[in-house]
Amino acid sequence: MSTLSVKHYVEIPVGSLDNNKADIDRLNHAITEATSAPHIEWPLDLILEAASVLRETSGKVTVAGSIVRDTLMVSSIEPGDTSQRNFGMAVDIGTTVVAVELIDLTTGATLATFGEVNGQAEYGEDLLTRLHFAGQGGSETLTGVLRDTINDLVNKACTSAGISPSEVMAVTVAGNTSMAHFFLGLNPAVMRFEPYIPSINHIPRLRAKDVSLITAPNATVYVFPSVGGYFGGDLISGAIASGISENEGTSLLLDIGTNVEAILGNKEWMVAIAGSAGPALEAGVAECARRAEPGAIERVTIDPATFEPTYSAIAGETAYGFCGSGLIDLVAQLYLSGLLDSTGRFVLEKETARWREINARMSYVLTEGANGQTPTYITEKDIHNLLTTKAAMIAATTILINSVGVALKDIEHVYTAGSFGIHIDVDSATTIGLYPKLPKERFVTLGNGSLAGARAVLLNAERISEAEHIADTITYLELNVHPEFMDIFRSASYI
Amino acid sequence: MSTLSVKHYVEIPVGSLDNNKADIDRLNHAITEATSAPHIEWPLDLILEAASVLRETSGKVTVAGSIVRDTLMVSSIEPGDTSQRNFGMAVDIGTTVVAVELIDLTTGATLATFGEVNGQAEYGEDLLTRLHFAGQGGSETLTGVLRDTINDLVNKACTSAGISPSEVMAVTVAGNTSMAHFFLGLNPAVMRFEPYIPSINHIPRLRAKDVSLITAPNATVYVFPSVGGYFGGDLISGAIASGISENEGTSLLLDIGTNVEAILGNKEWMVAIAGSAGPALEAGVAECARRAEPGAIERVTIDPATFEPTYSAIAGETAYGFCGSGLIDLVAQLYLSGLLDSTGRFVLEKETARWREINARMSYVLTEGANGQTPTYITEKDIHNLLTTKAAMIAATTILINSVGVALKDIEHVYTAGSFGIHIDVDSATTIGLYPKLPKERFVTLGNGSLAGARAVLLNAERISEAEHIADTITYLELNVHPEFMDIFRSASYI
Repeated sequence: MSTLSVKHYVEIPVGSLDNNKADIDRLNHAITEATSAPHIEWPLDLILEAASVLRETSGKVTVAGSIVRDTLMVSSIEPGDTSQRNFGMAVDIGTTVVAVELIDLTTGATLATFGEVNGQAEYGEDLLTRLHFAGQGGSETLTGVLRDTINDLVNKACTSAGISPSEVMAVTVAGNTSMAHFFLGLNPAVMRFEPYIPSINHIPRLRAKDVSLITAPNATVYVFPSVGGYFGGDLISGAIASGISENEGTSLLLDIGTNVEAILGNKEWMVAIAGSAGPALEAGVAECARRAEPGAIERVTIDPATFEPTYSAIAGETAYGFCGSGLIDLVAQLYLSGLLDSTGRFVLEKETARWREINARMSYVLTEGANGQTPTYITEKDIHNLLTTKAAMIAATTILINSVGVALKDIEHVYTAGSFGIHIDVDSATTIGLYPKLPKERFVTLGNGSLAGARAVLLNAERISEAEHIADTITYLELNVHPEFMDIFRSASYI
Repeated sequence: MSTLSVKHYVEIPVGSLDNNKADIDRLNHAITEATSAPHIEWPLDLILEAASVLRETSGKVTVAGSIVRDTLMVSSIEPGDTSQRNFGMAVDIGTTVVAVELIDLTTGATLATFGEVNGQAEYGEDLLTRLHFAGQGGSETLTGVLRDTINDLVNKACTSAGISPSEVMAVTVAGNTSMAHFFLGLNPAVMRFEPYIPSINHIPRLRAKDVSLITAPNATVYVFPSVGGYFGGDLISGAIASGISENEGTSLLLDIGTNVEAILGNKEWMVAIAGSAGPALEAGVAECARRAEPGAIERVTIDPATFEPTYSAIAGETAYGFCGSGLIDLVAQLYLSGLLDSTGRFVLEKETARWREINARMSYVLTEGANGQTPTYITEKDIHNLLTTKAAMIAATTILINSVGVALKDIEHVYTAGSFGIHIDVDSATTIGLYPKLPKERFVTLGNGSLAGARAVLLNAERISEAEHIADTITYLELNVHPEFMDIFRSASYI
């Protein structure tokens, strides 16, 4: 097990008439003795640097590199012993938010985690708008702002940890197929249309300078492979984080974010389904959603006569916002009180002071907000998000299970990734059918599975083979064109 | 046996919902089926190009690349079938003259050969002057003008053959160790001093854009390895051209140019010696030397009483200049007539109208020149060149033969390369001791052996392993510091 960037300090004996091999040849000899890779690949700019550094230090240098098959791809040469300063950056390119995690590859510790809105949002909140803009000549712009966002995060993470970005020797990037294309500088606009075919799935190892990153210019950059237009490297990375491909027993991975993505499998086989659940989930679960933490509303009832709510919040703070179970209670109570029909539309004929237009959208106000806080409310869009996601997840899970003939009860673990997984607790999600009905102890929340997989590869480069193998061998079903999908989706779209 | 650049025309089926692999992944699959290399390496700029070209041509493309171990390094992707347009450029970087040869890799034909003065000459006629300039901050300048010279020649060769430089997919470069360093952008100035250690001997495969060549930007560039400061890739290339490392019997390779370089060996072992014979040979054999062709003076006698010469020239043209045998005759006659002492100095006390200052150097004028031609003359510098070269060659050959205990008579072939080899015929060279005394039929003139080896590698990439193996395993003796050298050299420096 070796980290994605390896560093070796070597001392090259000073050349003499009897040992008159060239400086860099002697260095190469010393490095191949120290690593398992029989071959070394130097970019020319580092050869020029090596020539000077070797002479200036009388041969006392540290060489950083990354092993690709049988070759050490050199990423840096530094004077003296810097072998303990070896840093990697995991990057998760979400359509909405980009997140980075700075790892000390010597200790395995996370030194900093930062996230910010994907700079592309300025050119379209949802992916389809950006793909349309890319198709109109905006592709380079979108590549530029995405790389700017990543570099800004790299800079923030490094500054907070007190290291220089040039000390980052390895970068792992997980993102959906379109984001991977934008990151590389490829125009993904054609993927909007059938047969939704990407330009590239398996991406060769890059160097940071190729994609304008502010890390060490020759830092190795690994981008997780995609499988199809709707099945990106973020899901492969999530699979790596879950360990699903290492388990004897069969597990299910559910990633609920912009798209619905699910993997069912074990170390022998894997089958996946992915597709768009509509653009509704872009902005998150619901405007007033929050984690299940002190102050979050977790139980709601609505009086069917007065339409006035009562609620209880997790103790400790002033009640504001709702966690997943609060959201589900609220939707169920709106329906039971007659304020919501079974398709998810407000019944505005029922008069109540709780109806209010907020941000130009009709809302049901749950709390007025205390101490200057904004109200807690729910919109039809929030409800539609929940119903659509539920329907898509039910359809995806049903199709996957039917396709391989596994019984639901035989699924040993359900790994959940994506923003829904964080905001909704397992009990609530199981109740409304978002998660399959299985004992609570089988559920494992990965949080940002995509970022976790990117970190896992930084710490153990051998998992790259696993990621590539998953992408090569997984059976991938396109959700949106699957014959069963619309039937199941429609019947599951109601409350 | 495959050429250094290989091209494959493929037709990639149009993607569909059932065959929804990414475009470039499908292309990679088709290419690995067509080549022996299981892996493919794409530079990012060509991935971007491939994405467009594949769509524009509905998957009908030609991919050019070069196989390095188990990997096809892609150098170009072109629309349609261009597999028959596959060109390579052999480059010999001499200190004095740079030569190129444009090869059609499909037919093996030479399409053009051009040579011109190395642009570095402006900054110093001889190598030591240039190394001094490089040590004073002139290294980048010398790299720039050298690359300019090469690009000028590439342009001339391509223009004359009616192809675009961007169609050149492979470049092989042979030059002495300093020239290889300059070509890469490395400063070779430190090699002036003991222990004469280069920065690099084995040079990784480059791409044309790394070294600013005007060929296809990603054309593969192979630079022959050096063995030491005075033993460069030009000699390794010459060894490849001679086939010395493939022979059962033992052969000798003599390269007489700026430096004295000699290899003795066979397929089992090789031993080499190289070193500076002084800066005298920079400008060529002699100012008025020419090939043994019509008009060249080949026999000279000088009247010991009047000091007037008589001569005969090869029939066909007005006599002008001398070939090798004429040069040797002339030197011998000057000595016998008393106009030259045994150390190679003119005896100017002897009065003759033949003494004349030409280009600020005292000369003996052999012919006045007819039809407006310049005179044919010889200077002390020319004579010193010949004597020094002779002495160095005798020393080198003697040391080599003594070091391995081979009898002179057992040397099956003597390959001669470099300008002396072209200008001096075997009989004359053997007479004055420049070449070892062996039957004439054992001598093989390679001409520009360095360029010939560069061409050989373009046509058969497998010979790269042979070149690298020679450089790795050859026993190399540094001529200038060898204990026997000065004794043999001094005793051989007289007429």
